[in-house]
Amino acid sequence: MGIHAYFRSLGGLERIIRCPGKFKFEEHSVAAHSWKVVQYAKTLADIEEQHGVKIDWKKLYEITSSHDYGEIFIGDIKTPVKHSSPQLRALIQQVEEGMVHHFIEENIPSEFKSIFYNQLREGKDQSVEGRILEVADKLDQVYEAFAELQKGNTEKEFITMYRSALTKIKDIPLHCVGYFLKYILPDLVNEETISPVDIRRITEEVLAN
Amino acid sequence: MGIHAYFRSLGGLERIIRCPGKFKFEEHSVAAHSWKVVQYAKTLADIEEQHGVKIDWKKLYEITSSHDYGEIFIGDIKTPVKHSSPQLRALIQQVEEGMVHHFIEENIPSEFKSIFYNQLREGKDQSVEGRILEVADKLDQVYEAFAELQKGNTEKEFITMYRSALTKIKDIPLHCVGYFLKYILPDLVNEETISPVDIRRITEEVLAN
Amino acid sequence: MGIHAYFRSLGGLERIIRCPGKFKFEEHSVAAHSWKVVQYAKTLADIEEQHGVKIDWKKLYEITSSHDYGEIFIGDIKTPVKHSSPQLRALIQQVEEGMVHHFIEENIPSEFKSIFYNQLREGKDQSVEGRILEVADKLDQVYEAFAELQKGNTEKEFITMYRSALTKIKDIPLHCVGYFLKYILPDLVNEETISPVDIRRITEEVLAN
Amino acid sequence: MGIHAYFRSLGGLERIIRCPGKFKFEEHSVAAHSWKVVQYAKTLADIEEQHGVKIDWKKLYEITSSHDYGEIFIGDIKTPVKHSSPQLRALIQQVEEGMVHHFIEENIPSEFKSIFYNQLREGKDQSVEGRILEVADKLDQVYEAFAELQKGNTEKEFITMYRSALTKIKDIPLHCVGYFLKYILPDLVNEETISPVDIRRITEEVLAN
Amino acid sequence: MGIHAYFRSLGGLERIIRCPGKFKFEEHSVAAHSWKVVQYAKTLADIEEQHGVKIDWKKLYEITSSHDYGEIFIGDIKTPVKHSSPQLRALIQQVEEGMVHHFIEENIPSEFKSIFYNQLREGKDQSVEGRILEVADKLDQVYEAFAELQKGNTEKEFITMYRSALTKIKDIPLHCVGYFLKYILPDLVNEETISPVDIRRITEEVLAN
Amino acid sequence: MGIHAYFRSLGGLERIIRCPGKFKFEEHSVAAHSWKVVQYAKTLADIEEQHGVKIDWKKLYEITSSHDYGEIFIGDIKTPVKHSSPQLRALIQQVEEGMVHHFIEENIPSEFKSIFYNQLREGKDQSVEGRILEVADKLDQVYEAFAELQKGNTEKEFITMYRSALTKIKDIPLHCVGYFLKYILPDLVNEETISPVDIRRITEEVLAN
Repeated sequence: MGIHAYFRSLGGLERIIRCPGKFKFEEHSVAAHSWKVVQYAKTLADIEEQHGVKIDWKKLYEITSSHDYGEIFIGDIKTPVKHSSPQLRALIQQVEEGMVHHFIEENIPSEFKSIFYNQLREGKDQSVEGRILEVADKLDQVYEAFAELQKGNTEKEFITMYRSALTKIKDIPLHCVGYFLKYILPDLVNEETISPVDIRRITEEVLAN
Repeated sequence: MGIHAYFRSLGGLERIIRCPGKFKFEEHSVAAHSWKVVQYAKTLADIEEQHGVKIDWKKLYEITSSHDYGEIFIGDIKTPVKHSSPQLRALIQQVEEGMVHHFIEENIPSEFKSIFYNQLREGKDQSVEGRILEVADKLDQVYEAFAELQKGNTEKEFITMYRSALTKIKDIPLHCVGYFLKYILPDLVNEETISPVDIRRITEEVLAN
Repeated sequence: MGIHAYFRSLGGLERIIRCPGKFKFEEHSVAAHSWKVVQYAKTLADIEEQHGVKIDWKKLYEITSSHDYGEIFIGDIKTPVKHSSPQLRALIQQVEEGMVHHFIEENIPSEFKSIFYNQLREGKDQSVEGRILEVADKLDQVYEAFAELQKGNTEKEFITMYRSALTKIKDIPLHCVGYFLKYILPDLVNEETISPVDIRRITEEVLAN
Repeated sequence: MGIHAYFRSLGGLERIIRCPGKFKFEEHSVAAHSWKVVQYAKTLADIEEQHGVKIDWKKLYEITSSHDYGEIFIGDIKTPVKHSSPQLRALIQQVEEGMVHHFIEENIPSEFKSIFYNQLREGKDQSVEGRILEVADKLDQVYEAFAELQKGNTEKEFITMYRSALTKIKDIPLHCVGYFLKYILPDLVNEETISPVDIRRITEEVLAN
Repeated sequence: MGIHAYFRSLGGLERIIRCPGKFKFEEHSVAAHSWKVVQYAKTLADIEEQHGVKIDWKKLYEITSSHDYGEIFIGDIKTPVKHSSPQLRALIQQVEEGMVHHFIEENIPSEFKSIFYNQLREGKDQSVEGRILEVADKLDQVYEAFAELQKGNTEKEFITMYRSALTKIKDIPLHCVGYFLKYILPDLVNEETISPVDIRRITEEVLAN
Repeated sequence: MGIHAYFRSLGGLERIIRCPGKFKFEEHSVAAHSWKVVQYAKTLADIEEQHGVKIDWKKLYEITSSHDYGEIFIGDIKTPVKHSSPQLRALIQQVEEGMVHHFIEENIPSEFKSIFYNQLREGKDQSVEGRILEVADKLDQVYEAFAELQKGNTEKEFITMYRSALTKIKDIPLHCVGYFLKYILPDLVNEETISPVDIRRITEEVLAN
């Protein structure tokens, strides 16, 4: 149908709720998550620039804002499923890419096809922009999990999410990760909470490894 | 942890919403869907019994009530994804079964293990009970899709869902399918609707093929 | 209108929320509750069978899955109202049965009438299946109330619900009740909680009486 | 506990949803309904005053704002249940009054008891204020039902609600009813609608009888 | 369009949620808030009458029930915005009054215009009824904020709301304020809570100043 | 508190619902809206680039993703209020900027202050990026309003929103506006709808002026 089909499809991500099946005090749509990732990434990139790193802002724009677009076709498949085997993970990614490919072929006018193929590619590569996306995406898991634990959510899944997201972040070689660990994370850990979970201890354990 | 872990896990299906990502006037949890499948199946089995067919009620009970239990672990993966390739479908089913297996091993006391393995197996086999489950599961798609179209939902997905569920049902060799097509479906098609979609014509097309 | 009217009516139980008027962190529809009762009952019956008790699975299927069907007509009348006087309780049950009767007369084809009268009868009799239904129904109150208390809900109603459901269960003479008290309940009480209510003490008080 | 227990209890009516079990595009709490009844009644009383009728504003204030307070204890029992037999209706009203009585005895300090007994009495008597309350209460049913039909709701219940509320209103001997029928109702009927229901015809039928 | 336009507009306050943008365990519509204010005011006025104060019940009825009607046109503008400068506050009030004025001119028949201008005026004047409205309005903020803190909400906004509402109330010269501080507030402070916030200390601090 | 305070604040836009007080079939948070604006803007900028226009992607990134950040402090003030007088509009913008200024002063470390002042500035200037933002922002109003009308929403507000957003867009001198009017808008107008509103005619009227 043309670009209209693409614009129309965006609403789908407002209706997909992250972390389905678990009790949560607050729900987050994939659209809202995507916006927060865009916002985190901008500040993270600012920090990189302050350290003299050159940022390709067009690329960063494209890969952050569209990084979960494929979920319009496959939904928010539970992380343990995605990661249960490297074979399945690869196959699911292949299906997602196939469906995005099919959508582009069906709907996007030929003069835009290469642009869309480029924008909707998997963005988490080893470039500085790819790494910033990876950090920003995990950062939202840290914030989501923390906000649930803080309100007294006792689902184990949120402890796991907090722990594994933080573990991923801390090993990514970027200046902004250093800034996050030194200045941002301590403020988060110091917030008031009614959680029976000792978030400070979990944080220290992750950082110690 | 024992049977408690199993009882506690059931709440997960109350939080998984069917058909994620599509606009709908009414949401349905997998738990509520499961209950409706149990109810349809009971009446379908009653119709079979009236035709002299012998029903294994214990088996029917087990396979209908638990038929979507595995979604606690994998969520409601969008149907087009599941079916996009036989290879993927097989792999996803394999993962789902692996996760159910893992749950049983971790949580269910040894004296109940064989019972749970049996109950949580894939139920849609070629037995009469397996076929009734298949009909009941698709019947809920017919009712869900119809209720959306009736209220004026214009998402193409619900037309597809209505059409493909009906197509599946009509070819299943059971007495209750005959009854459904002759007595139940006409009443449904005759309901008042504001839909711009011609549900009657779609129904007739499906039945004509 | 025929069986269609019955199938169509099932959706009503998805829209009736249990325990209206009280603050809760999570809402439960009567449909989802019904499904959980079906699931608990299946495992409770498995335990009975392990002790050599004979289960009529068809009967258990019918009475568990339909045990709250009458709420489609009368809604979830608050328990204190229902029980405020034996006279009122009897009258409400009479009205509910009258409305189910009326529904069957109006909608169900004559060849199915006796089946529906039988299925939609009050199932909590003194048979083993009737007792299992009673335990399963109360068990869901235990889980519902516990999940609210666990999250810090301070409404007195949930303490009352937990206490009275447990009190009912413990006096029902079934093997599965013994199993529940010995193996399942302790796991529940040991879960992490932020409740200012001492659930363990309440549990011990109930069991001591 | 004193007046605090009363103030605290008011929140209960924010959580009770009117017309449980039926599909609706918009839900209404009993608290919001109560506020609208207060607002309608004020204008209806203004119309009476314009015709020289004397209004007891204190009484009107008391009976309109508290007219559904008893639902805190009994919930929104479905109208067909309430009215299925005069005996049941009387018994339910008796239980409701008993529970309000019990609440006052338990919680309200002695110097306020007579005030609360007076305020929380059944207000729909044959006084002009009692009649205004009756009209205002039914008027909200007219508006609720109309708003659903207007959006294309095909549940029969809303046609019944519209018809029976209008039937009740038209026979109440008040100046404001004349004004409503002559000036307000025609504007309502003239609103744009996508309903397949012919609201104008139903309105004319009711008024013709 | 006449009175119908006014009656129809009331539904708008059911859709405006108080305190937008902050996490809350329970949402409150402006309609439900308005009803609670009406209820508090009635009891507060009863207390005044017990001390021999004469109440103009018609005026109290009008100003309490309509005190937030103007939010239909301007929404629930965040309090810090409204109060950020006396100039802005005045301008916003001017706009709100202008929009109410415009609504009356456009919709209300001439014989009712003066009545509506009077009813929809700003009611918080220095009369006893105006003061009761001010207390009742702030009282609902006390209850709303307390209910959130009690459940473990850690948003600072609710501490601020509790503190500032209580500060406003305690300086209003009315008998009912004395009663509230002496008999009602202590019961509220004594309720069970999981809040890490020391509500008792905050209350004592406010009262000490 | 540092950058943490900024990251933490983003969740506020997930809780602010656009177009408060009006009935809608689907709600949209300001966060989700912001993401869609980012996405539209990207494609609009791609179209500009195809016409040889140079895009400052960093600027476009900053102004699109943060264009409604100030609503965290002032909420979604109803458009008619904002625009009711140029004086009020100016004052509200001044307050919003004052609150953003205050937030930066209080929370953002000095080495980031100039970056944040720059990013959170009003972005709708006469640069190509500022114009793209204006188009993208209005485009989401077109899509939001259309989706409501399409489902049969009869609130006048959505017709007004559709008409005025389209009117704004069509006069903005950009290549992408030409593309939108020629290729995208016709596809939108051709979608199936149950609306009694003649969207095609309204569209043609707007374009003819």
